[in-house]
This record gives sequence, C-alpha cells and structure tokens, in this order.
Amino acid sequence: MTMSTLKELITHEHLLPVAPMIYAAWADGVLSDTEMTSLRAYATGQDWLDADAQAALGAWLDPEDPPSATTLTRLRAAISTSAGDLSQCHQMTLAALGERIATRENGQHPPAWYSDDVRAHIEAIEKNLGFAPKDAASAILLREGALPAAQRFEEPEADFDIDAMTRLLDGPWRETWKSVRALLASDAFEYVDDVSTDAYREQVLDWLKVVARHGFGDIAPKSKDPSMEEIGASMGRFMASFEALGMFDLSLAIKFGVQFGLFGGSILFLGTPKHHEKYLADVGSARLLGGFAMTERGHGSNVQDLQTTATFDPERDEFVIHTPTDQAQKEWIGNAAVHGQMMTVFAQLHTAGEQYGVHAFLVPVRDADGQPAPGVRLKDCGHKMGLNGVDNGRIWFDQVRIPRENLLDRYASVSPQGEYSSPIASGGKRFFTMLGTLVAGRISVAACGLTASKSALAIATRYGAMRRQFGPAGKPESPILNYPTHQQRLMPRIATAYGLHFAVEKLRQRYIETRGNEDNREVEAMAAALKSFSSWHAIEATQAARECCGGMGYLSENRISPNRVDVDIFATFEGDNTVLMMLVARSLLSQYRQQFENASIFTLARFVAGQAASAIQKRNPLVTRDTAPEHLRDADFQLRVFRTREDDLLGSAAQRLKRRLDNDMDAFDAFNEVQPHLLSLANAHAERVVMECFAEGVDAAQDPALKRTLTMLRDLYAMEYLHRDIGWFLENGYVEPQKSRAIRDLRNQLCADARQQALPLVNAWGIPDGVLSAPIAFPR
Amino acid sequence: MTMSTLKELITHEHLLPVAPMIYAAWADGVLSDTEMTSLRAYATGQDWLDADAQAALGAWLDPEDPPSATTLTRLRAAISTSAGDLSQCHQMTLAALGERIATRENGQHPPAWYSDDVRAHIEAIEKNLGFAPKDAASAILLREGALPAAQRFEEPEADFDIDAMTRLLDGPWRETWKSVRALLASDAFEYVDDVSTDAYREQVLDWLKVVARHGFGDIAPKSKDPSMEEIGASMGRFMASFEALGMFDLSLAIKFGVQFGLFGGSILFLGTPKHHEKYLADVGSARLLGGFAMTERGHGSNVQDLQTTATFDPERDEFVIHTPTDQAQKEWIGNAAVHGQMMTVFAQLHTAGEQYGVHAFLVPVRDADGQPAPGVRLKDCGHKMGLNGVDNGRIWFDQVRIPRENLLDRYASVSPQGEYSSPIASGGKRFFTMLGTLVAGRISVAACGLTASKSALAIATRYGAMRRQFGPAGKPESPILNYPTHQQRLMPRIATAYGLHFAVEKLRQRYIETRGNEDNREVEAMAAALKSFSSWHAIEATQAARECCGGMGYLSENRISPNRVDVDIFATFEGDNTVLMMLVARSLLSQYRQQFENASIFTLARFVAGQAASAIQKRNPLVTRDTAPEHLRDADFQLRVFRTREDDLLGSAAQRLKRRLDNDMDAFDAFNEVQPHLLSLANAHAERVVMECFAEGVDAAQDPALKRTLTMLRDLYAMEYLHRDIGWFLENGYVEPQKSRAIRDLRNQLCADARQQALPLVNAWGIPDGVLSAPIAFPR
Repeated sequence: MTMSTLKELITHEHLLPVAPMIYAAWADGVLSDTEMTSLRAYATGQDWLDADAQAALGAWLDPEDPPSATTLTRLRAAISTSAGDLSQCHQMTLAALGERIATRENGQHPPAWYSDDVRAHIEAIEKNLGFAPKDAASAILLREGALPAAQRFEEPEADFDIDAMTRLLDGPWRETWKSVRALLASDAFEYVDDVSTDAYREQVLDWLKVVARHGFGDIAPKSKDPSMEEIGASMGRFMASFEALGMFDLSLAIKFGVQFGLFGGSILFLGTPKHHEKYLADVGSARLLGGFAMTERGHGSNVQDLQTTATFDPERDEFVIHTPTDQAQKEWIGNAAVHGQMMTVFAQLHTAGEQYGVHAFLVPVRDADGQPAPGVRLKDCGHKMGLNGVDNGRIWFDQVRIPRENLLDRYASVSPQGEYSSPIASGGKRFFTMLGTLVAGRISVAACGLTASKSALAIATRYGAMRRQFGPAGKPESPILNYPTHQQRLMPRIATAYGLHFAVEKLRQRYIETRGNEDNREVEAMAAALKSFSSWHAIEATQAARECCGGMGYLSENRISPNRVDVDIFATFEGDNTVLMMLVARSLLSQYRQQFENASIFTLARFVAGQAASAIQKRNPLVTRDTAPEHLRDADFQLRVFRTREDDLLGSAAQRLKRRLDNDMDAFDAFNEVQPHLLSLANAHAERVVMECFAEGVDAAQDPALKRTLTMLRDLYAMEYLHRDIGWFLENGYVEPQKSRAIRDLRNQLCADARQQALPLVNAWGIPDGVLSAPIAFPR
Repeated sequence: MTMSTLKELITHEHLLPVAPMIYAAWADGVLSDTEMTSLRAYATGQDWLDADAQAALGAWLDPEDPPSATTLTRLRAAISTSAGDLSQCHQMTLAALGERIATRENGQHPPAWYSDDVRAHIEAIEKNLGFAPKDAASAILLREGALPAAQRFEEPEADFDIDAMTRLLDGPWRETWKSVRALLASDAFEYVDDVSTDAYREQVLDWLKVVARHGFGDIAPKSKDPSMEEIGASMGRFMASFEALGMFDLSLAIKFGVQFGLFGGSILFLGTPKHHEKYLADVGSARLLGGFAMTERGHGSNVQDLQTTATFDPERDEFVIHTPTDQAQKEWIGNAAVHGQMMTVFAQLHTAGEQYGVHAFLVPVRDADGQPAPGVRLKDCGHKMGLNGVDNGRIWFDQVRIPRENLLDRYASVSPQGEYSSPIASGGKRFFTMLGTLVAGRISVAACGLTASKSALAIATRYGAMRRQFGPAGKPESPILNYPTHQQRLMPRIATAYGLHFAVEKLRQRYIETRGNEDNREVEAMAAALKSFSSWHAIEATQAARECCGGMGYLSENRISPNRVDVDIFATFEGDNTVLMMLVARSLLSQYRQQFENASIFTLARFVAGQAASAIQKRNPLVTRDTAPEHLRDADFQLRVFRTREDDLLGSAAQRLKRRLDNDMDAFDAFNEVQPHLLSLANAHAERVVMECFAEGVDAAQDPALKRTLTMLRDLYAMEYLHRDIGWFLENGYVEPQKSRAIRDLRNQLCADARQQALPLVNAWGIPDGVLSAPIAFPR
C-alpha cells in the first residue's frame, strides 16, 4: 500500500491547520449536512485561503461526495504521522493540533501566512462547531484504547491500620471470629455450585458436623447449674459464631441456626434440667438433628392463632399432637424434609377441657433409619430461590402420642392429673415470653445478613478497583470504582455496614445482659427493628454489588449472587419485616402513651425537652439553613435530626390513632389506616438506633486514625439516610432547600472520600481470601 | 372438671361490672405492677363497693399473689358464658361488657346499685388504663381466631370488561399474542424446577425447537426482495412473540432472542442476500444454532475498543480471526457453551495495513458432532444466579480462517485485493450503524422484562386477595391485600406496568416505522431509556411480589422467584443500564446544544416557551400550592410537571458541563463529575416518556369503562413517581409542602382504589392459567 503524506492527501498546504477539523467533521459523524455546508460557507471568503485552497476545502466538505472510508482512515493515519508523538500533550484542541501540524510540516516555525488572525479564525470555527473541549484532538485521533490492563490493584495506601480496625470490629468476640476464620479457611470448606439439591444438602450437613466437632454448636455452658452470666457468655459466643459463619455459605449458617439456635435453644430456654441432660449434648454435637416447628400454612406471621393441638390424655400420661386441618400443617420447617429426627412443635395445649394457648413439645418425627415416625407425614417444601442447602419441609401429625415429659415445661406444666399450672398467669404474656426464644434468632439473622452484605461489598469493591472500562482519550481506561455513580452505589452501603455492625454488637450485648429479665420488651423491639433494617440492607447491598459487577456478579463462582438469593428470605423468616416493623411501632406507641399517662416527672420532662428542641430546630433558620460542612458533620446535629424525625412521626402517629379511636373506629381498622405511617416511624426509629450506635462506636475508638476513618463513615451514613428521606425533612420544614443541596453534595463528596480508602475498608472486615474466594476479587 | 359460675369465681356481685377489666388487666399483660396498684387504689373509697367487695377486688389485683393461669382461663370462660352470644355486638368496651354481664346476671335489668355514677366511674377507669378502643371486649374475649378459611377469592366485581382490556393491550399484535398463548398452553410447555443445569438447557432447546416449528423464529418476510414495510411487519411480529414468551420461562425467551433476534438478526441486517439465502431458513427453523459474539472479557460496555482481530489475507482470500490476549476472549456468549454451531463474531477488521474498526463475521465454531472447529476453544461460563437454561460460554480464536464472503458486508466490504470500501465513511458512524442491530434487542428485552413483571404481579395479587392473616377481633382474618402497606407495594407497580406497556408499544412502532432510516438516534435513545426503566421496574416488581408472598414467594414452584433471578441480568445485558442512561443523557445534551446552535426559529421558540412555562409554574403559588385532586389528576398538570423536571435537569446539566469545559477540564473528567446529575436526568426523561405514552394510551381508549380504569392507573403512575422524587420538587420550589402531602395522600388513595380492581387488572394481562401455573395463584 502506498502511504500518502498529509500534504499530498489534503492537496493544499493552507488546509493543513484545518485538516484535523476536516477529519473530525466526517469521523465524529455528529455534524449534520447543514452544519457541514455552513462550515464550508464559513471558510469561504477568508483571504488566507486562496481560490485553489477553497476549492480543495470544498471538495473535502461536499455532502454529496463524502470521502471514502479508506480515505478517511488514511487521513487519520497521515494526521497522526504528521503530528508526531502526542502522548505528552493530549490536552489539545483541533485548532492547536492543526497549528502543530502546519508548524512541523513547515520546518520549525509556523508558515508565514499563519497569522494570529488565522489562528483566531480557526479557533472560532472549532468553537462554533461544538468541538470545544481541550482534549478534542486526542479524543478523535487516539481513539484506539490501550489494551486493557491485567486485573490488578493500583490503589491509594491505607491511611489507617487495617488489623487494628479488624480487632476493633471483632470486639469482645475476637477469639470466636479468629477461630471461625481459621476453621473456614480449612480444606473442608470449599464452595459448591451447580450441584443437585440433594448433594448440596448433604454437603451442608457434612459442614455442619465439622462445625459441631469444633464445639461451635454448644449453646449451653459446660458447668452444671450455670449462672445467668455463664449462660449469657455461651449464648454470646454462639451468636458471634453464627454471625461469622455468614462469611461462608449461608445455607450452612442457617442450618447451624436451626439445629443449635432454634432446636437447641428451645430445649435450653423452654425446657428444664431433665430436658437439658437428656438432649443438649446430642444436639450440640449434631448427633440428634432437629428443628423448630412453629409456622403453619395458615398462620405464618400470626403464630398466636396457630391450630395444631396438643391434648393431654391423663389415662396414658401422654400428649396427643394433631393437625386438625390442612391449613394447620407445619410449613417451612428447617431440617424437616430430610435430616431432622425430632422437632420442637408449637401447639395449642388442651387439658381438662380448657385450652391454654401455644406451648412447645418435643416430638420425634423420624426413626434412626430416617423413616417417618408413626402418624407423622413429612414432605419436602421443594426448590427455592436460594438456601437450597437447607431442607425445609412440611409436617402433618395424625394423633401422634408423646410422653407428658416432652412438654418443654419451663413456663408451664401439666400434672399427671391434667392440672395446668404456670408461673405466668396471663396467656398472652406467657406466649410472648416463650416467643422470647426467637429474639436470639432475630439478632443472629441481623448479624448474619450483615456479614453476607460485607462479603458481597468486599468482592464488588475489589473488582471495581481493578476492572477498567472507558477512559480519557489516549490514557489507560479508568477503574470503574472511579465513576461517581459506581461509588454512590457502593460507598453508602459500606458505611451502613460499619454502622450496623456497632448496632448489632450493642443489641447482642444488651440481650446477653438482660436475658434473665422477664420484661425484655425493649430489647425485643430493638431486635425486631435491626432484623428488618439489616435484612433490607443486606438485600440492597448484595443487589448493588451484583449490578456493580455486571455479568461477573451474576456468575455463581463470584459468590455475590448466591449471597443475594440466600439473603432474600432474611426479610421474611424469623418474622416478616413489615410485621416486625408494626411490632416496633406498637412498642414505641406504648412507651409514648406511658410517657404521658405515668406522668412521671422524669419522662415527661425528657419528652417536653425533646419537643422543645425539635420545635426550636424547626423554627431557627440558623439551623434549618446552616449548610456548613462542620455543622453537617457534627455528631450532635446528626443525632438530633434523626431523633427529631422519629419524635415527630411518633407524635403524629399517636394523634392519628387517637383521632380514629375517638371516632369509635375499631382498633384493628385504626391501626390499619395508619399502617404506612407506622412503617415510616419504625424505619425512622431503626435508622436513629443505628445512628446512635454508630456515634457511640466512633466515640469509643481510641486510635486516632481509626476514629478519623469511622467518623468519615458515620458522616456518610448520616448524610445517606438524610438524603434518602430528604422529601420528609423539606416537607416538614426541618431543612431548607439550600441545606438539602448541601446534604447531597456532602454525601457525594464523602462517597468520593470513602472511595480513596475503599480497599482498606472492606479488607478490614477480615474475610480470609479463601473464604472470599470469588475470582473477580483477586488480581490476575 | 367443675365449672364455676362467674359470680362464684369473682366472689362478689358488685365486682361483676369490673370482671372484664380484672381479666384484661392480667391477661393483656401490658399493665405494670404500679398500674395494677393504682387501679386498686382508684377503686378504693368508692361507695358502691362495700368493704367486702373492696377486699375481694384487692385479692384479685394483688401483684404479690397473681391469679393462676387456670384461674385466669376459667375467668375468661365464665365471663364468656355470662355475657352470652357476643357475635352480633363485638364493638364493645370493657365497661359496656361489664354492664351487660351485671344486667344478665341480675335478670333483665341492671342491678339497683349500678347507677349512672357507677357507670361513669368504671368508664373512667377503663379509659385511664388505656383500654380505650371500642372493641376492647372482643379483642380480649374473642382472642381465638376463626380457623383460617380455605384460600379463595372474595373480591369485588370487575367494573370494566376484562377481555376488552386484554384486546386493547394486545393492540396490533393481537394475533401474535393469541397464538403464543395457545402455544404455551400446550403440553410441551411445562415448567421444570430443580433439575440439573444440563437437563434444563436441553429442555429449553427442546422448547425452542417447538417454538421454531410453529414459525416464530422467522424474522425475515417470506417474499423475495421484501419492502421495508414487509421487513418491519415481520420484525414487529417477531418482537411481539419475544415479549409474549416472557409469560413463560425466561431462559426460553432469551435463547429465542439469541438464536433468532441476535444471530438471525445480525445476518438479516448486517448481511446481504447471499447470506440471507444461505442461512436464514436454517436459523429460523433452529437447524443451524448460533450466537452473537460481541462482548469480550476486557470490553463489555466499551465495545468499540474490543480486541479480537479479523485480518484479511488476499493470498487465500480469507479472513483470519484471532484472539490476541486473554482479555480479548469472547465472554457471556449465549449458545456458546453447548449448542451453538456458528457465531456472528465482532472483530477489528484489518486489511492492507489499515485497521477499519469493528465488523461482523460469520465463524463456524462447532462441527455437526458438537466438536469445536479447528483453532476454536470453547468454555462454559458456569452456573449463574438465573437463566441457567441459556448456555453462556467463552470463545478463544487461534488464527481461525474463514472465507472472505463470511464478512457480513452490508455496511462495508473488502475486495479480493484487500481494498476496503464502505458507504459510510466515518468509522464511528459505521460502528454505531452496525450497533443498530442491538436496538431491536433492547426493545425486546424491555418488552420481555415487562411481561415477566406482569406475571409476578399477577401471582402476588391473586395470592394477596386470598391469603388471610390477622384480623379484627372475633371476625375472619383479613386478606393481606387489604393492608395498606401491601397495597402500596403492589399497586404502583401494576400501574407502572400498564404505563410501560403503552411506552414499549409506541417504541416498537417507531422502531418499525423508522428502521430503514440511517439516522435513528432518537429511537435508539428511547430504546436505551426504556430498556433501563423496564429492567429496573421488572427487578423491583418481582422483588416486591416475592416479599409480598413471604415464604411462598421464595418457592420456585410459585414462579415469582425464578422470574426474579432471571430478570436480574436484564439490567446488565444488551447494555448495562447505567451506561445506557449515560447514552440517553448525552443524546439529550446533544439535542439541547443543537436547539441553541442551530438557532432554528421553531426549536428556539419551543424551548423558550418551555422555559417560560416552568418559570411561571415555579413562581405561581396557585400551581405550587394547588392540592385539589382534580388538579393533581389532570393529565396536563402531570405531563407538565414531568417535562418541567426534565427540562430543568437538562438545563442545569448543560450548565455544569459547560462550566467545567470552560475551565479547561477534560471532556472525560467533566462528564464524569456530572455523571450522577446525568443519571437523574436520564431517569427523569424515561419517567416522562412513560408518562406521555400512558396519557396517549388513555386518550386513545374508546370504551368509557376502560378509559376510566386506565385514567385511574395513569394518575397512580404520576403520583407514584412524583412522590418518589418529591425531595427534588420541594427543593426546587416546584411544589410546596401542602402539595407534597396532597400528592402522597392521593397516591395512597389511588392504591386503595386500584386494590378494589386488583384482580381484574392483573387478569386483563391475559396470562393463561396453565402458564401462570403458581399454586398460590389459584383457589384451593
């Protein structure tokens, strides 16, 4: 092939400075014919272009006779050759490039005819045609991107001690985390994808047995007659293991929760020493596999009305467990489809002609050979969206007889004569006390979902720091984590995961400290709020991570999508999130009522002070309009604004309810009508609780670098959740438009700041490489 | 067992009217000991209670000596017996119930000592203790819920003709929808769950062949040398089939799209008659299985920079296809892992020492026995979150030779001598013209995702109308669809699905009408916007449906969760949503620039008018404060407010960009910095387009009942999307707080209205029962 020089190709020396523009006009393809014509007309009548040059330019710009593809390709090559090495000066307009070419073709100086007027004229043409940016030249000439670099990290240094952060987060459960990390890094724990449901279930059971062999299934202390403190410490260790197992396969974590937490926990907390001695060791070692048969087809959320009966027969000193209707079948029972041998069954206790409400009974459902016990029918629930390593099943009982001693009788017992007795007189209170066993489960689900979100966020962040796509002309492509939209999907969730970590930790501590108390309603409400908040966060974070990794996030081997489908049910099991949030709202309303009706000086004063503070804030323009970063980043402001929203929503919810009840509306209907408002209230409450725990976590951090980093994340959490609900704050006059803008700007700036430390932040979660596992999370 | 009468149990006649309150005080369990004491103290010194009665009351209310569980249960039974049938008067306070009891025990009249003062006093106690609601009595006494009813519909009648609505939605593709419905209702199409990936892929291939046998794979008209109109009509039918297949398994729909749309479409639109004659019949009948090998590992979104080379060798009149680096491997290619025999491969064309950019080549990859062709390496992508019926694979080419004629040469050809020619001179323009083949794919993905969302919404709505949980005391439990939070999760998505239906229909029509035109940028931008909007809607709607069905939504047999995981990738493939939204924003910016720089009187006038309108709206308090429903439900207002937001965001985005470019920032960096703003702009644009198409759809409806129904849904769509972004409208002064509240209230009211017609609305989508399939969607 013959290579033409640029001068030959362009045919006239005076066209050299506009050659790049001629090329751009055709190559960029965005100029209409009209514009092309006007470019031609514009160039006409310039005295630096003689008639020959004008004719040549006309030929180049004739819409009726465009240059061929080959000509255009050659023009680019010739411009490129003529311009020489552009790598050091990619910031160049087309006019400047044209000047450089004309200069180089002329030797070292611009040609004599290239006056300042000519330059100004050419610059004006360029601007007029919309080729404004300073990098127009390279954008067009250096179109070929570099070969994509191998996937590797080129990230800023950590500006805090990653190990120190891991220790801070591990907190009181450092030893548990360390031993779970070590265990999961062993050979036994290798992910399986794309195996049959049967094989997956057996794999998960094998893992469960390994975990049990290492003692993680023991929820009860070793000592006989342990103190409340000892039981608390054991429970804490158990719950921390559950949380840490969330780093690996969630089917294992949930089966662990079913076997040891729900089945073992129901025996420990609802049973008495005779049950403990007989069963707990075998349960903890996974020799006796069992489950927690509460949910029925007809009653999932409304468990108080479940229909299975347990009728005492004094003749034979037995209870008869029975499924009266098909709607009373036990459904979704973990371990029921294949592995479970015994179940803690919840049923309405009948004795001596009275019904005493829901109680728990130990019922064998399979013999040693895995055959159903007499009168027991078992059925697989079938394939699910996720968690297919857990064998959920359905159970029907046909007059199944169990000894009287199989009633878990901590809160109620029946004498051989059929006389019922309970330390708790109220059926409702007794029921909710028994349900207290679910609180540890809810806390663990919150913790485990949080861990799963960390895993997905860590993988997506590591991938985003390595994966490159698009970039400035003539430069390497940019890591996708450098794009603001990408940062704004991942960074707020990383901040939330940090905040939630402190909140879950505090909740667990309070649960352990108060577990003995009869009235644990505050911890129960906190568990309900954080279980919902955490599971929704986990769904959102794994979803964002999935989308941020594109197709790679969709591949099972990259671990994000298995986490995504597994956590989906976290919003449903252990209490449907919306139902739990109603429970939270009712608890807040009940506290609110007591604040007034107890007329205790202290609570009233606190309330009035709270009202006054929010009223002041509402009216004081210095606060509603203050947009200074130091104000927005002040923890006091952050705490106040979250509290104010909650107080406001609580007060208005109470008023709305009262108005309806005063108008003789049914309580059921009244609550129904204000349900969306109550949901907002419960969400505001959960966000405030996390905000407070986050601020406390920051305050407690000693190391200045950790404190600085956590403060940045706390600020991001605060701005993120203010921003999400900014409509409410604006509508209610708590912020003015300029403040709303400042909040958004600060949130975006903090996302960019967090991005600088993104890798250290996710690495500090201490998920071992082998457990993280996803190929896209590692350089190659 | 001896049954005590209430009088015996309560020990004193004068305690009869407070017996319900005594029971409630213990049973409800919410009264603290302090409150119990105060109740006791309060009762003290009342002259209607003599010393004996006071002592008896004191005994009942002693916190140190609570009644036993048995006593409490008997107390309830005795109250119940004494009160007689309460079913007709469940609206009763505890005081009223006490009066009834005292009256009945006394014969027919209240006892003489029961004065008005006594009544007032008892009512005051009740109120004070917080048992305010009118249904307190039944709430406590009728605690046992009814047995849950069998799952069945008890719904309001349809107030429009469901079939007429189906016909309206089917629109011009009525025959296609009818034939796909009939086909899918046949025996061949039965869902499979929980089978191995291999078996699932073979099942999907079998389905594909059935679909092909019925002629749905023919994208080209039968006639030789068809007109543009004929090609358009064929494409339209094909795209409507793709949309309708979304009712069934999405792996089938996507494999259908890969085989016929992408593979067949690339041959039809990028090839010339020699290719059509040789291949199209075999492709359409699925005898020749193929795929569309564009995406590379290193370049997914940035396809212009992909690296595979196709170098012309004039010696042998062949192209040599080669994978130069591992990052250049073809990835995610549908049909590549197992079934594909030939691929349309996108590669950089090199000839005579020049590179001419990306072109498409037909490359055989497997022989008849399924063995890889020489030089071709194929690998399974592996297990995915969903769509496992589609065999995605990776491909490497090692100097693979194909005849010159395998270049799909509609837009460029190479002579035997290696001379390149193209009717489109600009490489960029040529590339984007070739990419135009993707537009039909994007439209079809938008349409298919919409159908999947309808299926999930139909199942969740039908289940929600039958599933009952909780309820007013003593009444049957309520269908969960009656709960406002439930309605507010499903109804707005149903409305959106209706609106999106009109938008997709219009987009498809415009695509068909303009397909011949070279400059199709407007349709391309609309396709990009609606593909993103629809896939995000589908993810959101299937997710809401999943959560609304609780555990049942998690079971694969109920079809929601398979749809959920399958549509997840719709946000990524055929163009990552965020990347597509940037394309939309750039297209809007480019139109905006032309509006000014073309200085056409017409466009300028339109723009200025638009600016003026929004300025007026911004300032006129009658508009910003108007909260009347007839104003909010006025289509003109709705259209104006969506347009105003888009215009405002477009203007401010342009200003921000200009400021950065004027300050000499790189175009790449400048676009980067305003990326989140551009994303908001593109979202506002997509929502406006759907709003407009929805309004047009309503206008076109003739039947008054359909028009009324569609208007209600259009209003709900409008309020939903205003409500979602209400922070923006408030911040920018387009609405005032009272209007913001009115928008939310109307949105919630419309959700309640739509709920009344929920079943007819989802039934009108015309998904046959057997295709809907989910057990939870049907009475039993």
